[in-house]
Amino acid sequence: MDIMAAGRTYAFPDNQTLDEARPWWMEQSAGQTVVALDGQEIIESAKMGPNRPGRGQHIATASFLVHPQHQGRGVGRAFGEYVIHWARREGYRGIQFNAVVGANHPAAYLWQSLRLEIMGTVPEVFDHPDEGFVGLHVMYQCLR
Amino acid sequence: MDIMAAGRTYAFPDNQTLDEARPWWMEQSAGQTVVALDGQEIIESAKMGPNRPGRGQHIATASFLVHPQHQGRGVGRAFGEYVIHWARREGYRGIQFNAVVGANHPAAYLWQSLRLEIMGTVPEVFDHPDEGFVGLHVMYQCLR
Repeated sequence: MDIMAAGRTYAFPDNQTLDEARPWWMEQSAGQTVVALDGQEIIESAKMGPNRPGRGQHIATASFLVHPQHQGRGVGRAFGEYVIHWARREGYRGIQFNAVVGANHPAAYLWQSLRLEIMGTVPEVFDHPDEGFVGLHVMYQCLR
Repeated sequence: MDIMAAGRTYAFPDNQTLDEARPWWMEQSAGQTVVALDGQEIIESAKMGPNRPGRGQHIATASFLVHPQHQGRGVGRAFGEYVIHWARREGYRGIQFNAVVGANHPAAYLWQSLRLEIMGTVPEVFDHPDEGFVGLHVMYQCLR
């Protein structure tokens, strides 16, 4: 909830209650939402599923939230690898990230190291709380 | 409903009833859905609104459905101009189309003529009923 509220990584609605936020993160049916625990504390969560319904459902997408105090420990990379492996196993033809915040350099670097490519960057479409209007990358990897 | 079902232009869920399809097309609150009539027949509809919630709500998006028997009469262009005018008037900083089907050449041409630019094309992410896996363009125009 705090990471959502900080507004640095996703364009979710502002100031949501837990109940309002739930459907923005908890995947249904074809997808899944997973967490990583350090003891009893959740330190990362990822959700994955079809990027679009119908004629886009052969492409996967995923989103990630890492606890700020546990960044830089390789949890993001492990989850990225898990998600790509999951998408391949589920038979998706490719995986697309629709909105990687341009100012979030570690994320763009990590996804590129996992062979997602920046297909385009749309300028100024994300209102970053510290950096103002920044671009969003569209990233893609073919899995066939 | 027929255009949605034909699956050539949008990745909506397949085989929806009218009630299921309604929230995929009818905009709420900040957006609007408009139609063009020829007599009593609806020949085009467009919906427009914020592209993303929260930190993406300063960017507009829109979608268009034109009756197949009324294509090529300039209705699409008139609606495109209306939507861009609407977005500017409502104070949006830009307008983004997230998924223009690459095989839909008239649409890509029309939006470019209205000064949206192709920021990137993600290959094979749309399962076209006639042409198989084709790309989707991400298009954008700054309105400031």
